[in-house]
Amino acid sequence: MSVGEICNREVVVIDRAASVYEAARMMRNHHVGSLVVVDVNSTTPKRPVGIVTDRDLVVEIMAKEVPESVLTTGDIIAPELLTAREADGVWETIMRMRAMGVRRLPVVDTGGNLSGMLTMDDLLKFIADELSDLVRLVRREQKREKDIRPPA
Amino acid sequence: MSVGEICNREVVVIDRAASVYEAARMMRNHHVGSLVVVDVNSTTPKRPVGIVTDRDLVVEIMAKEVPESVLTTGDIIAPELLTAREADGVWETIMRMRAMGVRRLPVVDTGGNLSGMLTMDDLLKFIADELSDLVRLVRREQKREKDIRPPA
Amino acid sequence: MSVGEICNREVVVIDRAASVYEAARMMRNHHVGSLVVVDVNSTTPKRPVGIVTDRDLVVEIMAKEVPESVLTTGDIIAPELLTAREADGVWETIMRMRAMGVRRLPVVDTGGNLSGMLTMDDLLKFIADELSDLVRLVRREQKREKDIRPPA
Amino acid sequence: MSVGEICNREVVVIDRAASVYEAARMMRNHHVGSLVVVDVNSTTPKRPVGIVTDRDLVVEIMAKEVPESVLTTGDIIAPELLTAREADGVWETIMRMRAMGVRRLPVVDTGGNLSGMLTMDDLLKFIADELSDLVRLVRREQKREKDIRPPA
Repeated sequence: MSVGEICNREVVVIDRAASVYEAARMMRNHHVGSLVVVDVNSTTPKRPVGIVTDRDLVVEIMAKEVPESVLTTGDIIAPELLTAREADGVWETIMRMRAMGVRRLPVVDTGGNLSGMLTMDDLLKFIADELSDLVRLVRREQKREKDIRPPA
Repeated sequence: MSVGEICNREVVVIDRAASVYEAARMMRNHHVGSLVVVDVNSTTPKRPVGIVTDRDLVVEIMAKEVPESVLTTGDIIAPELLTAREADGVWETIMRMRAMGVRRLPVVDTGGNLSGMLTMDDLLKFIADELSDLVRLVRREQKREKDIRPPA
Repeated sequence: MSVGEICNREVVVIDRAASVYEAARMMRNHHVGSLVVVDVNSTTPKRPVGIVTDRDLVVEIMAKEVPESVLTTGDIIAPELLTAREADGVWETIMRMRAMGVRRLPVVDTGGNLSGMLTMDDLLKFIADELSDLVRLVRREQKREKDIRPPA
Repeated sequence: MSVGEICNREVVVIDRAASVYEAARMMRNHHVGSLVVVDVNSTTPKRPVGIVTDRDLVVEIMAKEVPESVLTTGDIIAPELLTAREADGVWETIMRMRAMGVRRLPVVDTGGNLSGMLTMDDLLKFIADELSDLVRLVRREQKREKDIRPPA
């Protein structure tokens, strides 16, 4: 199973020049906890350059009482961005996220352009579904026996 | 959550005087891997006195080339039987089963009579359902936010 | 298993008169995503009156460009607060959280005073541990057989 | 994650000419519930030709009161055998096992020779470990924040 098969394809993007107020509004209006930051004026406008979460806005800005009106999303993103590729294995990616201590990764296609987002909630749903499949296997086995083994 | 709420109520019972051939036939015809042994001629005909599994028949009888036609199910059950009560907590019972190394427990009512069977498959289904409920909680939370927070 | 046995006992509280800047700072300094709001000047200073999350600060305040310096945490909490009691069952509480669409509940003792917090992360850990216990049961069963059944 | 990475490498094999008594003894002495059947006198002595479980011995032989002393393991195996290859994906294999209603699959290498066994217990352990890894991710994330975000 690859990351591309289970990641969320509805990602909300924001330009690095947008204000942090705009970021907060997008989080509210789209009901998401994170935005992928891009640089729309660059030659690679679809390449993710950062990620900003609702928690980042609180701990990096509000907690420091930084004047919000002058800040852009580009000002608060980390210098480096971790991403996953669509073809990456799910299990290997869980290992990587755990090692890095991150709950979400933007997913990129072979050209490096944003194609989705993988969050802990997606992974949790995947594992819960796998487990439910195993449980159904048990019942399926009993049914199969009924079909192939007539009473003695 | 109590054992009585998740255990399987369809238990197949066999008399301790029945032959092991009869036990094997019941396992085949009812598509179960275990039978609860009772003593129908005692004053407590519904009280479980033992448990016999398909594996027991193989490792205790066939592996030893014991003459099968003279054996009863009562001959091969363990001297003591572990049971669970309907009111026992699920989690506490998992702990107990793990400590004892058993995959299944007959369940008895307050009178000591058989009322069900709790197997590892039942527990697995319970945990898988709990996990799926948690996953649904995530989606429900997003829906709730959409309902109560209009766009800014 | 009851809520009191698995909830987190380290809860960060904030007075309803404290500013939202103070709330943001506490979230940053204590590395938590939510605070339980109390009224320290009331006759019940340990009774929770609300909950405020990092996301609330973003979507209720920053997204609306509300002047932050005049707001208190008491201004942004919901009129009603859902809580769990220590004696509540874990499974029943998962059901309730799912029905309500909330990821966390303050936990109160029999006197109504704050005694902990139950989050989806706590529940996830509980379920993961239950599942691991079941897996260990399988190995324990094999070991038990080795102990009681000598080679034939 | 591939089947070869999580399957059990300790598989007990039995020749198709061996008696069913011998099969029962091997199940007892090796503490396993299934044996992979091979044909040691063929040109492909390591290629699995069938699988026999403790339950098969009970429902196919004892339940029918078939004379055991004349039966070989080769007599009771199914005409066709499902296998998994080492390179098969875990999730895809769970899907396949569920569709087929089987709890275990012999695993073969690229040459078609037996290299392991994949059982529901192995899969359950894999999923339980994945889930525990996700839970640890949550704690790792909190630790990471403590490292990178000093108090404001």
